[in-house]
Amino acid sequence: MQKIDPQEIEIIIQDIKQAVNDADWVTASELLNLLRPQDQADVFEEITPEDQSKLIPSMDIENAADLIEELGDEAAARLANELNVDQLAEILDYMEPDEAADLLGDMSDEAADQALSEMEESDEVRLLLEYGDESAGGLMTSAEVLLQENMTVQDAIDHLRQTTPDSETIYYLFVTNKSQKLTGIVSLRQLVIESPSKRIGDIMTRDVISVNVHTDQEEAARLLARYDLLALPVVDDENHFLGVITHDDVLEIVEEEATEDIYRLGGVPQAQPSDQRAWFAIRSRLPWLVLNLITAMASATVLALFEGTIAQVAVLAAFFPIVAGVSGSAGTQTLTVIVRGLALGELKTKSNIKILLREMSVGLMNGIVIGIMVAIIALVWKEQAMLGLVVGTASFLTLICAAIAGFLVPVGIQKMNIDPALGSPILVTTITDSLGYLIYLGLASILIAQLI
Amino acid sequence: MQKIDPQEIEIIIQDIKQAVNDADWVTASELLNLLRPQDQADVFEEITPEDQSKLIPSMDIENAADLIEELGDEAAARLANELNVDQLAEILDYMEPDEAADLLGDMSDEAADQALSEMEESDEVRLLLEYGDESAGGLMTSAEVLLQENMTVQDAIDHLRQTTPDSETIYYLFVTNKSQKLTGIVSLRQLVIESPSKRIGDIMTRDVISVNVHTDQEEAARLLARYDLLALPVVDDENHFLGVITHDDVLEIVEEEATEDIYRLGGVPQAQPSDQRAWFAIRSRLPWLVLNLITAMASATVLALFEGTIAQVAVLAAFFPIVAGVSGSAGTQTLTVIVRGLALGELKTKSNIKILLREMSVGLMNGIVIGIMVAIIALVWKEQAMLGLVVGTASFLTLICAAIAGFLVPVGIQKMNIDPALGSPILVTTITDSLGYLIYLGLASILIAQLI
Repeated sequence: MQKIDPQEIEIIIQDIKQAVNDADWVTASELLNLLRPQDQADVFEEITPEDQSKLIPSMDIENAADLIEELGDEAAARLANELNVDQLAEILDYMEPDEAADLLGDMSDEAADQALSEMEESDEVRLLLEYGDESAGGLMTSAEVLLQENMTVQDAIDHLRQTTPDSETIYYLFVTNKSQKLTGIVSLRQLVIESPSKRIGDIMTRDVISVNVHTDQEEAARLLARYDLLALPVVDDENHFLGVITHDDVLEIVEEEATEDIYRLGGVPQAQPSDQRAWFAIRSRLPWLVLNLITAMASATVLALFEGTIAQVAVLAAFFPIVAGVSGSAGTQTLTVIVRGLALGELKTKSNIKILLREMSVGLMNGIVIGIMVAIIALVWKEQAMLGLVVGTASFLTLICAAIAGFLVPVGIQKMNIDPALGSPILVTTITDSLGYLIYLGLASILIAQLI
Repeated sequence: MQKIDPQEIEIIIQDIKQAVNDADWVTASELLNLLRPQDQADVFEEITPEDQSKLIPSMDIENAADLIEELGDEAAARLANELNVDQLAEILDYMEPDEAADLLGDMSDEAADQALSEMEESDEVRLLLEYGDESAGGLMTSAEVLLQENMTVQDAIDHLRQTTPDSETIYYLFVTNKSQKLTGIVSLRQLVIESPSKRIGDIMTRDVISVNVHTDQEEAARLLARYDLLALPVVDDENHFLGVITHDDVLEIVEEEATEDIYRLGGVPQAQPSDQRAWFAIRSRLPWLVLNLITAMASATVLALFEGTIAQVAVLAAFFPIVAGVSGSAGTQTLTVIVRGLALGELKTKSNIKILLREMSVGLMNGIVIGIMVAIIALVWKEQAMLGLVVGTASFLTLICAAIAGFLVPVGIQKMNIDPALGSPILVTTITDSLGYLIYLGLASILIAQLI
């Protein structure tokens, strides 16, 4: 492959689309071959699954396998459903086993079974399918080369030259003993640098960071990231070497995790591709809105309690968005900091009291400033000193409540082993809204004689 | 280093804290040596900067350098300020140049200058400091080994054995021509597998993905992630090789970026450690609350317009949280999906109309369901058919507006080259709130005769 600059890529992409429009699959696949798999995948996601399935048979099988590995999960499954079972099985044989297992897992059981039975080398993929999609086992791939302790460095290099593994997993080489238990790790760098006559057992690192096959994939990703590893070995309960998780999987997981948190904080409980279909979007978002509707009843009930007060002093209503809005924002600020801190592991349970005190003092200080500003606005706008006092005091008190709720809610949810990103925003908003109205209208009712 | 299991780590950490409490720095540093740098950093962040600065002199310089590289930016700068300039300079000499430059960049100019002048090898660090902290140049590190096209594979391996580079950057080896221009790349895997007599120029890949030294670090990270690279070469405008960005930097950037988005969406404009001090938290959050207060005035003005209506039909107020709250949530859902899609590059400008139409149909469908539910609630709770009709219709219309605003606001902000995560939530909420009140109370005013 020659060096291609971005402008050239754009021109090639246009030409491919033209060829697809003309149903000239041979030209299209030749042009696709000029691009890297990641860029091929981008082009693919812009054409229909029908056109994709017509283009695939013109492509080299290996190239097609590389491309499908780079497609999004949903897009890959959609395309796989369009292909005939022979083609699909052949492509699956060329894919990395962990990627093949992922794809099969996203297909219907029936279609996946058919494809598996047509595959030539389905054993490893079947094994991976048995581990959960979200576990270390579902993420691992097999190591093409394993070393033994009594090999010399030269033996190891010769072994590598013979097997010529094509994957980049060989930068870390795992050493096993006779019963296939993981005993050490040697980097390719060491093999090159160390004297050829040394024994692997003498140069290997015995302090191997490994992960159990049933560990959650997020935890595995965290380990890789934390210790800057290129590869993390996966073992069973008896420390038998099973496979390896590579660095490129980690980035995907970290990004997926962050996306999930952002979605959940934004009231979209299920992370989804942003090009999702309308029907999917409705189904995933509507239940959350209904939940919102139900929790909004709390505030509605508070307001209904004070109907009499509102009827007497309708000007009170003008300040609802200020009292509820600003404290809602303050609560959201606190919960955002807490939820992210918990997700990144920055917040330890022991330092909780310190952080709660900090949030309370933030609420207190911001409450004083905002309270005074709100009071001045009321005074200038409505020319009523007592109204200013009521609105200002209510804002002040609600901001302190917001800080406490913004801390206690996510920490409490986390203690129940639920993702705090999931329920915190809706709960904090419900609390700040209804408490805000209660404090504000409660104060107003007490001082009603001065307000009329 | 022997293999250590998590329980043992916990015990060692307790012992270290005990030794620190007893001011027994020698024991503490010996125990620290048993841990990996990442775990050492965790322990360090739990003791005071004063104790840290007393512990550092008892530690091996190389170990101290590794540890400081793993500390958070703020913690590292705080510790560096506590150390005397000789110690600091010695440690900086042992640190990776890009990490040393980062640390110096976080210190006061005066302290950084002093430390630089005491360093033995400050040239490379000075060079890195000249590039922006957020640029590819600020992130890169120098390659310890460069190859030439006319070397053989055996020459290259011999060269590696002589220089024995200790960093893992040698998995990708960069090939330059006589004028130091980058011409190709060879992986260590190729060196091991290919026949020793082959010419590097014949086996190298000429299609090198590289990045300009002034490119933003986020873009560099995206390239590394997109093409699953272990290392990305950094070049100047004439394609001279300058250094390399490695895979471990990328994960940090992706995580930082996600954290920034989460903070901004949560109304905390400046990403910050979750263990920030109260004063820092107040300064960063208060301006945002004031902005919220100002935008809340829009809704307050709408409500003030309808004071007469509210005074006549105070029951209307009970439904404020429902009309405004649910549409606000719907707007947040849409903007969350759009903002994240834009950040991940999933949303292309061309497909905008399609996504807008999807969001509008989601708003329409959810609007119908929520509208009917709200109407029924009003009917059952307040036993007023006309009120139900007004509240239901208002909710329906506001949800459609929320969907449109949730799409248009982030896309518009992005078009102005501002991060859509920054202003979208506040703007969308302002729009949904004030439009919600306007539609609801507008309808109520028109039908006031039927409502009293």
